[in-house]
Amino acid sequence: MNEKKKYLYLFSEGNREMRNILGGKGANLAEMTNIGMPVPQGFTVSTEACTQYYHDGRKINDEILADIYEYIGKMESITGKTFGDPENPLLVSVRSGARASMPGMMDTILNLGLNEEVVEGLAKRTGNPRFAYDSYRRFIQMFSDVVMEMEKSDFEHLLDEMKAAKGVKLDTELDADDMKKLVAQFKALYKEKMGNDFPADPKQQLIEAIKAVFRSWDNPRANVYRRMHEIPYDWGTAVNVQAMVFGNGGENSGTGVAFTRNPATGEKALFGEYLINAQGEDVVAGIRTPSPISHLKDQMPDVYRQFAEIADRLEKHYKDMHDMEFTIEDGKLYMLQTRNGKRTAAAALKIAVDLVDEGMIDRTEAVLRVDPKQLDSLLHPQFDPEALKAATPIGKGLAASPGAACGQVVFNAKDAQNAVESGRMKKVVLVRLETSPEDIEGMQVAEGVLTVRGGMTSHAAVVARGMGTCCVSGCGEIVVDYANRQFTLGGNTYREGDWISIDGSTGNVYGEAIPTTEATISGHFERFMRWADEAREMQVFANADNPVDAQQAVDFGAEGIGLCRTEHMFFEADRIRAVREMIVARDKEGREKALAKILPYQQSDFEAMYKVMGERPMTIRYLDPPLHEFLPTKDSEVAELAHQLEVNAVELKNVIRSLKEINPMMGHRGCRLAVSYPEIAEMQTKAVITAALNVSKETGLHIEPHIMIPLVGDVHELKFVKDVVVKTADALIAQAGVEMKYQVGTMIEIPRAALTADEIATEADFFSFGTNDLTQLTFGFSRDDVGKFLGYYYENKIYESDPFAHLDRTGVGKLVQMSATLGRQTRPDIGLGVCGEHGGDPSSVEFFQKVGLDYVSCSPYRVPIARLAAAQAAIRNPRK
Amino acid sequence: MNEKKKYLYLFSEGNREMRNILGGKGANLAEMTNIGMPVPQGFTVSTEACTQYYHDGRKINDEILADIYEYIGKMESITGKTFGDPENPLLVSVRSGARASMPGMMDTILNLGLNEEVVEGLAKRTGNPRFAYDSYRRFIQMFSDVVMEMEKSDFEHLLDEMKAAKGVKLDTELDADDMKKLVAQFKALYKEKMGNDFPADPKQQLIEAIKAVFRSWDNPRANVYRRMHEIPYDWGTAVNVQAMVFGNGGENSGTGVAFTRNPATGEKALFGEYLINAQGEDVVAGIRTPSPISHLKDQMPDVYRQFAEIADRLEKHYKDMHDMEFTIEDGKLYMLQTRNGKRTAAAALKIAVDLVDEGMIDRTEAVLRVDPKQLDSLLHPQFDPEALKAATPIGKGLAASPGAACGQVVFNAKDAQNAVESGRMKKVVLVRLETSPEDIEGMQVAEGVLTVRGGMTSHAAVVARGMGTCCVSGCGEIVVDYANRQFTLGGNTYREGDWISIDGSTGNVYGEAIPTTEATISGHFERFMRWADEAREMQVFANADNPVDAQQAVDFGAEGIGLCRTEHMFFEADRIRAVREMIVARDKEGREKALAKILPYQQSDFEAMYKVMGERPMTIRYLDPPLHEFLPTKDSEVAELAHQLEVNAVELKNVIRSLKEINPMMGHRGCRLAVSYPEIAEMQTKAVITAALNVSKETGLHIEPHIMIPLVGDVHELKFVKDVVVKTADALIAQAGVEMKYQVGTMIEIPRAALTADEIATEADFFSFGTNDLTQLTFGFSRDDVGKFLGYYYENKIYESDPFAHLDRTGVGKLVQMSATLGRQTRPDIGLGVCGEHGGDPSSVEFFQKVGLDYVSCSPYRVPIARLAAAQAAIRNPRK
Repeated sequence: MNEKKKYLYLFSEGNREMRNILGGKGANLAEMTNIGMPVPQGFTVSTEACTQYYHDGRKINDEILADIYEYIGKMESITGKTFGDPENPLLVSVRSGARASMPGMMDTILNLGLNEEVVEGLAKRTGNPRFAYDSYRRFIQMFSDVVMEMEKSDFEHLLDEMKAAKGVKLDTELDADDMKKLVAQFKALYKEKMGNDFPADPKQQLIEAIKAVFRSWDNPRANVYRRMHEIPYDWGTAVNVQAMVFGNGGENSGTGVAFTRNPATGEKALFGEYLINAQGEDVVAGIRTPSPISHLKDQMPDVYRQFAEIADRLEKHYKDMHDMEFTIEDGKLYMLQTRNGKRTAAAALKIAVDLVDEGMIDRTEAVLRVDPKQLDSLLHPQFDPEALKAATPIGKGLAASPGAACGQVVFNAKDAQNAVESGRMKKVVLVRLETSPEDIEGMQVAEGVLTVRGGMTSHAAVVARGMGTCCVSGCGEIVVDYANRQFTLGGNTYREGDWISIDGSTGNVYGEAIPTTEATISGHFERFMRWADEAREMQVFANADNPVDAQQAVDFGAEGIGLCRTEHMFFEADRIRAVREMIVARDKEGREKALAKILPYQQSDFEAMYKVMGERPMTIRYLDPPLHEFLPTKDSEVAELAHQLEVNAVELKNVIRSLKEINPMMGHRGCRLAVSYPEIAEMQTKAVITAALNVSKETGLHIEPHIMIPLVGDVHELKFVKDVVVKTADALIAQAGVEMKYQVGTMIEIPRAALTADEIATEADFFSFGTNDLTQLTFGFSRDDVGKFLGYYYENKIYESDPFAHLDRTGVGKLVQMSATLGRQTRPDIGLGVCGEHGGDPSSVEFFQKVGLDYVSCSPYRVPIARLAAAQAAIRNPRK
Repeated sequence: MNEKKKYLYLFSEGNREMRNILGGKGANLAEMTNIGMPVPQGFTVSTEACTQYYHDGRKINDEILADIYEYIGKMESITGKTFGDPENPLLVSVRSGARASMPGMMDTILNLGLNEEVVEGLAKRTGNPRFAYDSYRRFIQMFSDVVMEMEKSDFEHLLDEMKAAKGVKLDTELDADDMKKLVAQFKALYKEKMGNDFPADPKQQLIEAIKAVFRSWDNPRANVYRRMHEIPYDWGTAVNVQAMVFGNGGENSGTGVAFTRNPATGEKALFGEYLINAQGEDVVAGIRTPSPISHLKDQMPDVYRQFAEIADRLEKHYKDMHDMEFTIEDGKLYMLQTRNGKRTAAAALKIAVDLVDEGMIDRTEAVLRVDPKQLDSLLHPQFDPEALKAATPIGKGLAASPGAACGQVVFNAKDAQNAVESGRMKKVVLVRLETSPEDIEGMQVAEGVLTVRGGMTSHAAVVARGMGTCCVSGCGEIVVDYANRQFTLGGNTYREGDWISIDGSTGNVYGEAIPTTEATISGHFERFMRWADEAREMQVFANADNPVDAQQAVDFGAEGIGLCRTEHMFFEADRIRAVREMIVARDKEGREKALAKILPYQQSDFEAMYKVMGERPMTIRYLDPPLHEFLPTKDSEVAELAHQLEVNAVELKNVIRSLKEINPMMGHRGCRLAVSYPEIAEMQTKAVITAALNVSKETGLHIEPHIMIPLVGDVHELKFVKDVVVKTADALIAQAGVEMKYQVGTMIEIPRAALTADEIATEADFFSFGTNDLTQLTFGFSRDDVGKFLGYYYENKIYESDPFAHLDRTGVGKLVQMSATLGRQTRPDIGLGVCGEHGGDPSSVEFFQKVGLDYVSCSPYRVPIARLAAAQAAIRNPRK
């Protein structure tokens, strides 16, 4: 016989270590019980019961049902109260509580256990019929709303009518009779809508309430929240059944919420608010204005002293800033819950640093205390929080590049430049179907970029993140009308010059101007990040293609450049012509002539980069995109180009058409270009090596170029291109008469490269995982097209998160792991890094730490996040 | 100290088992030497020496050079002749000889060792100066051509001039003086072009000749031949240095080639021809007409008897039909080489069957004796061989679907149909940029299909193979001008109605009508294939989408259908409208309405298929292609559709535009459609299950439908679609009140599916490897776009064969292997098959046998090939 599984726990049976089973709330209620704090007692239905509920097809099975009845019995004997006993009724609250805090995402029911007899008994026993009926009407409304999914507003409407009839404004101004009448009206409404009477059996009420909490784990807002915070669906939620205490019993009662330190600033002082004669939801509802917690000191000095002492004990016990919910029932303080408090990034840094200074925690622990993703808010402008509260989004896209932006609408890059440069507009937001490399200069002057198409790794998203510019991508509801310079969204039309605001951290789009506040990095930041760097095992590099980005990256602490995309250098107006000439050349000779024109540009680009980076490693990736990306598409532009190049326009159009591909992502690009046209790799090698030689000579630094061949799928392919590189480089170095080392490595972004990494390593000094392309090919979907169906995949729980944002460990991760193992088999000292977008994603960074990579590389603005994420990953998964 | 590697072998040191080291020719020369046949002696430079030559940067290293000198010495003492000795000169032939026979691909040099002194000595010694100088002029020409890469025609021109001056037609009519003069002219020409004298040192001549043979391994025609026959580049060629015997010494000498049986028919009788007073190349050159070998019986009865005896011994020794080269020197017979003889498919079958009947070999051995790819020529029309000899190709594409076709040019499917149905043309060849599913009916009436774009797995190629229609795809040199109904190729313009011919087995295109012969299957075929089937371990299924193809497949021996593509059924004129209505529907309701119209069509399709297939398994793949493939693209067609569907044309155009994808191969297709629109999977399930129920009821057969979900990348995705299938199927079966089993499986064509096959197997009754898509995604290139760069990859030896034609074992094969292992881990009885194009490719079939798949599935016309390939694979790699 199997041992019977334990699904239920009295608060006295648990402790803080058991959050996986009890949820955060349950574990902390148990912990507070254990350390003797005044906690109304009860029990927790475990997260495993929730998982079982879903496994059983959304049913509580008989075994668990029997357990619940058993624990009701235990609870009755602990509290000395009985469900349904009018003399001494047990009333309970029923609350969700998942492993990870998901504030406001799931449901709560208070005052459960009331019925006609019990409410009458309660009125008698407390001598306070108003309190009893107030509690009852609250319960009916909550139960109807949460459990039966009736419209909350129907009940509120009845309450409003009652207040209007009595000519009063506040609920507290209604008397016992009013409440009693409301109860009758609520029950009538219930019967009308549900077809039967409001349930009178407290145990039945409880079972239904527990089911409702389980159900709420799967509601749409919880699903969205989980996806944003990478909380697995199969964790489930626990349910806490706790004896009610009443803050709404009169002027000697109340309820409140407080933090042990200020959650906005981190300042060390009790922070919070409370309401006299109220239940929990009144504080949140905002109908009455709560008082600051400090006022309690005067109003109820003993209670305040006791509370302050508990707060202090909790902080010392948990060694962290905590928040607490409490209720005062007839002058007696009860703790209803505690958890480590949510806080702003600035507060998180200050608290972590202060706790170290106070000797509460060590630096390692401090490093774990700040969520890396939070750092974004320190590095980018944010909306003014008050102004934001008043604004309603008109649409939502993907949170592609963090920060907040507010500006006037423009529809193309040139307009953006003209408007800003001429002073006609001060701040612009660029609205595009999608962006392309030609838009870069316009993106640079814009406050933010809003695109209709494209995902987290679309051009707009990648480039905006690189620039630190706010971007919302893939807002598919927008209908853009370029011709009339307007777009429609949410039923409204916005014209060029209209003000909009976008939030790159949430994806929200607003049809109005919302003021923003500048990014601010406090002194705590530098100190904290130093601790993080001490803990780190992987290096953090940046992806940067020009000296400005490179400098930004170094300022943010990047230790090198993991990806310098050479093609971005090709787009500037003065050089694109030579690039185009190269592309449309009829033969090798023509290509070489054009390449000779590009060479000086590339070389000076690299010289400028080396001057910024010095001896820090800089990995230069050779030409990657399909060539047609560099060519114009409009007839007028083609004609202009034909004129410039002195070729026939029709022929040119044919060349451009012949370069079109059915699946360009899987087409003639990457090292396939260098295999077809080795002279391109030759030119790029000349540029890299000559630049390194020149800067070495000028500065005396020892520069070791890292050359990276993209899109390799076979060792022979890499060898072919490498031979071109080595031949060219060695000749130049010999000619210069100096010693200079250089490395030639490859991207691992084609599944076949990962599968044959042992062979490829024989020719590669390093691997850099291009996890964007690797994800596309491993999943077999294009990041440009995935938007059409990914929504259905989330809806049906097929995927829980965007594999372009968080590395898919099962599939793509397996290939990364395999490559690392195979690569080290044939070349034990091979350098291993990642330069895909995942390099800046904390959960992916943790995986890379586990797999044993040497570095991660990400956009400059994500470097601090990657530094902290890598530090936390190293602390949690040390390599020894 | 390492043991010194042996690179050279006397003929007496080898044997027939050593073909990997000695090449086929070398091994057989050794074998004939061992069994005491009259072989002019010599030595073989091994294939390993060739590999070393390339490894050393195309140099013969000192070690091997010393070995060669040593073996020259040994040869001199064996033959009793000496290089350069005018009294008794050693003259040799130098011939290539690879592991696999590559006839005519590499180079041969005869009469090596001659110089001014030696030729004079030879003239004296033989008393035949004409013979001596004839040999010398031949040597100079061959050496200059093969070793020095001079123009052969320059020498032939001098010879022609000499004949003209003398007023004669044949070389034999020239006398000794003429030959002497020619030698002088040849040497002058050599000096003029090369800048130095013709080499006089025989050893130097030999070293240069050996290098030339090594070099010829890498000549373009050898590379192409190897790619066609899957011969690895790193095998290298051996070089055979053999003492010359002379067939050109007078009327008592001669040379010839013969087969132990007729290579065209398989008839058991010596077959061949010879020339008196000639050297080997004269037989091939065709200037003089050789005599049939039977004439030798009268002309030289002793020699003939000896030869017939040797032929008989050779056949018994090798237990196979052999070909032989021989020379008669002054009445004495010498065997110059032997190998198993090339033969037609019909001959191969007859010989294999006859050898069994003669008790020479057993059935297993017989099965190994026929090259599966040869069977193609039995199943498809072929060009008349004589007519083909006279024709010159005007262009070349990919050999996409075998057979020969000859017909009048048409440019679209409708024209093809009209022309043939109206009787205006009897035979047409459809010429298209590329084909699409709408062209199917036109392809059916065409003799052949010629496309400008697309590879071995393009639509045209796949569909043509399915129909058994000849197809040449990807003939990129063609410029099609649809508007004027003409195309240009090879500088000529071909108009609608002009006759062309195409060869789907070679890819050649001819600008003229070449008569074809019908496919003929002999009685040997059936008997032979039964033996193959007895040896087979894997089942052979066919890919078929309609009852006609299914019947064809069964007739060719298919044991089931491994892939029935449902979308091909959607294109017929009467149903495409409902399909389009479904696609452009605004909501689920609209889609369901349209799907209800499609259902009866699908159901009757499946009923017809089940009636053909009976209880044989039939795997039906659910809708796979992106929906936009079903929609019209031209404005006029869109307008027409809008009218039909009674929707706004502009809106419809927007819908069509919104369905366009950047990388459609990686877009919204496969099971992604069923995840987004489960109602499609529901309809298809209804059609499959109802059809199976109806046919079962009608016929009393036990039909077990196999339903296959395409493009799965995650187990949750499969489970979601499977749930829809199971729910629908179970309801229908319950409703019918009968017992019916069915299977739900998945394609493995996404790398992630292979990587997570253990998870996926928990929900899949079977895996079918879709190796086309799996190859695309594993390599990261699209089969539609790969044509642009694959040529460079062959050129640079990065790839040796087309991974779409022959499975890439290293990368894609690793995924297949991994899936099989992982899949069986969680479901030991999982069905494993392959339904990609590789299912009909012999070398891929061998891999699938090794990996342990249960079946392969291919186009109906490839079924016999797959049966034989699977039999050979099982014999070579038995599973026990």
